[in-house]
Amino acid sequence: MSNELILGQIDGAVFEIQINRADKMNALTDLMYGQLIEKLKQAENDPEIKVILLRSSSKHFSAGNDLADFLETKFNFESNVVQFLVTMASLTKPIIAAVSGAAVGIGTTMLLHCDLVFASESTKFSMPFIKLGLTPEGGSSQMLADRCGPAKANDWLLTGRNILSDEALACGLINHVMADTEMTWKEAMSCAQKLSQSSSEVLIATKSLIKAEYVDDVIGLIEKEALVFAQRLKSNEAQSAFAAFLNR
Amino acid sequence: MSNELILGQIDGAVFEIQINRADKMNALTDLMYGQLIEKLKQAENDPEIKVILLRSSSKHFSAGNDLADFLETKFNFESNVVQFLVTMASLTKPIIAAVSGAAVGIGTTMLLHCDLVFASESTKFSMPFIKLGLTPEGGSSQMLADRCGPAKANDWLLTGRNILSDEALACGLINHVMADTEMTWKEAMSCAQKLSQSSSEVLIATKSLIKAEYVDDVIGLIEKEALVFAQRLKSNEAQSAFAAFLNR
Amino acid sequence: MSNELILGQIDGAVFEIQINRADKMNALTDLMYGQLIEKLKQAENDPEIKVILLRSSSKHFSAGNDLADFLETKFNFESNVVQFLVTMASLTKPIIAAVSGAAVGIGTTMLLHCDLVFASESTKFSMPFIKLGLTPEGGSSQMLADRCGPAKANDWLLTGRNILSDEALACGLINHVMADTEMTWKEAMSCAQKLSQSSSEVLIATKSLIKAEYVDDVIGLIEKEALVFAQRLKSNEAQSAFAAFLNR
Repeated sequence: MSNELILGQIDGAVFEIQINRADKMNALTDLMYGQLIEKLKQAENDPEIKVILLRSSSKHFSAGNDLADFLETKFNFESNVVQFLVTMASLTKPIIAAVSGAAVGIGTTMLLHCDLVFASESTKFSMPFIKLGLTPEGGSSQMLADRCGPAKANDWLLTGRNILSDEALACGLINHVMADTEMTWKEAMSCAQKLSQSSSEVLIATKSLIKAEYVDDVIGLIEKEALVFAQRLKSNEAQSAFAAFLNR
Repeated sequence: MSNELILGQIDGAVFEIQINRADKMNALTDLMYGQLIEKLKQAENDPEIKVILLRSSSKHFSAGNDLADFLETKFNFESNVVQFLVTMASLTKPIIAAVSGAAVGIGTTMLLHCDLVFASESTKFSMPFIKLGLTPEGGSSQMLADRCGPAKANDWLLTGRNILSDEALACGLINHVMADTEMTWKEAMSCAQKLSQSSSEVLIATKSLIKAEYVDDVIGLIEKEALVFAQRLKSNEAQSAFAAFLNR
Repeated sequence: MSNELILGQIDGAVFEIQINRADKMNALTDLMYGQLIEKLKQAENDPEIKVILLRSSSKHFSAGNDLADFLETKFNFESNVVQFLVTMASLTKPIIAAVSGAAVGIGTTMLLHCDLVFASESTKFSMPFIKLGLTPEGGSSQMLADRCGPAKANDWLLTGRNILSDEALACGLINHVMADTEMTWKEAMSCAQKLSQSSSEVLIATKSLIKAEYVDDVIGLIEKEALVFAQRLKSNEAQSAFAAFLNR
């Protein structure tokens, strides 16, 4: 296994990106967001690539932001974490995610920018922003309601509770539930290969009609959320919650 | 039990409002809408209050508009019934509803303005406007589709049929189903208390990001619906339906 | 049985339109779209008619566009196929569809413009545009997500796979599932008759509030999709897929 924290490899016309930091449950750092952006742009710009696949190299998809790293990094719209989300939202090629284990915070919100999501039965999704004194990010304040309905969006964002695969499937947060992690990766790749039998032109035209003007709205939304998030980050409430978390 | 038709009481940082007209299945009069507005504004303006809880003091949440009273009251955008809905839609603090028994007409449409809804297994929701020769109100003509999907919105508004808790849960009209009325009140209060452990700042910021510009749209929508409703109210069709209902 | 490819008959205040080309699984030709437009306008303009019912006269609702005919006909926004969809989207009277057997391509997308859809258990829906090198039409690129959520819209439009009645019901593509074709036709007519007990005024006012400004958006969307579709139609990918299909 490579030491790189973000891996990229080509399989036919599919570009597979892996989050590769097993010892930290794939918690994401500023450096890793920078590398994710790079890999996504590589896939987007390579004319041989038709479909992108995003997964972890180990069980847990992502524990979310690495809080220690996060506190050391300046946060604003230009930050790698925000620009990663903007890059995800701006992809013109289809992107499929394969998720298992923990999908916390941005580990869930980044899925809102994926066209298809495969998850293992044991996946636990959560967006516990409110428990950290923080507010929704990554477009989730609007996109969750668009994707899963306002009832789920309100519930998940106001309580920050865990969401299991069955609930996620029933309301359209994800597309398919597989028995285990290996099966999830395999089925997601199989689907990616199948999609890549169509031309890039028809894939891009189809995704473009589906996304329509939504992309610009989403980037504006991510920016708006980042402003509120940045303010909340400075609050005593958030600082105390972070300290409590890091001193567990 | 108080003789007041609308009760308000503080429990920690939660303001609980109860509809208290058991003998009429909590049918709502112009006077009661006025009192509801007053209580909601009291909760919204009290800096000690973080979360609002709305329920009935007896089994039936609300049989909807008191038709006899309704016919005696001038109806337009300034009416208490419409301003009650505008007030609900304008709340910046989270509002949770606990519903059981009958939830007729505005007894269902007011729920569209609540952030979380708990209901008992035996709750019967309905929006039988069409059966009275009337049209959708309270934002329901658009908000039902946003919340539960166009298939349900079309069906419920065109047929005016009853909706049981299971169906309401499956499509996101409500969030949770409880065994009985007492459990519904208890769980809703427990959730309200849990939410109130966060700061008012983060609760308001989260709700504000979720609602976004939607609030202005909704008030415009309520106004537009009220104009059509007022016209329909004068029709022979509606007048006959009201007379038939009142002479049952 | 008449030789007419599109039948129209009045039953009380209900206008029933039947697609009548059993030998070709009700595949639709330019001529048939023209006749459908005519029947829809007749129903819309007849003051005695309150509700429209659309179904097939034989098992299969529609195999979609007749590809041989389609290739012989000039395709643009003025084409009968596109104007049929625009006419469907512009109806002010409620339209109910009764579907069974195959509902392919436009056989599914036209349902997005119906207010209520009844389907038999054995119905197979599909929008296999991508398999033919084509892109979503009839408003489906946006309306599917509005109606069934983005997860289903992405999945169905990117893979072109079959959708069975249970899945269609669970996500709101349709309203009711019946045991067989006859029951589907019967229940749809029974619902149409029930709706027609209300006045045309209240039916039209209710539908108008639900559709709101959406109608103009949808016509713009159908036009935008038709432009992309026309381009794709000229591609080698589409031409090869059509040739392969016709030479099966």
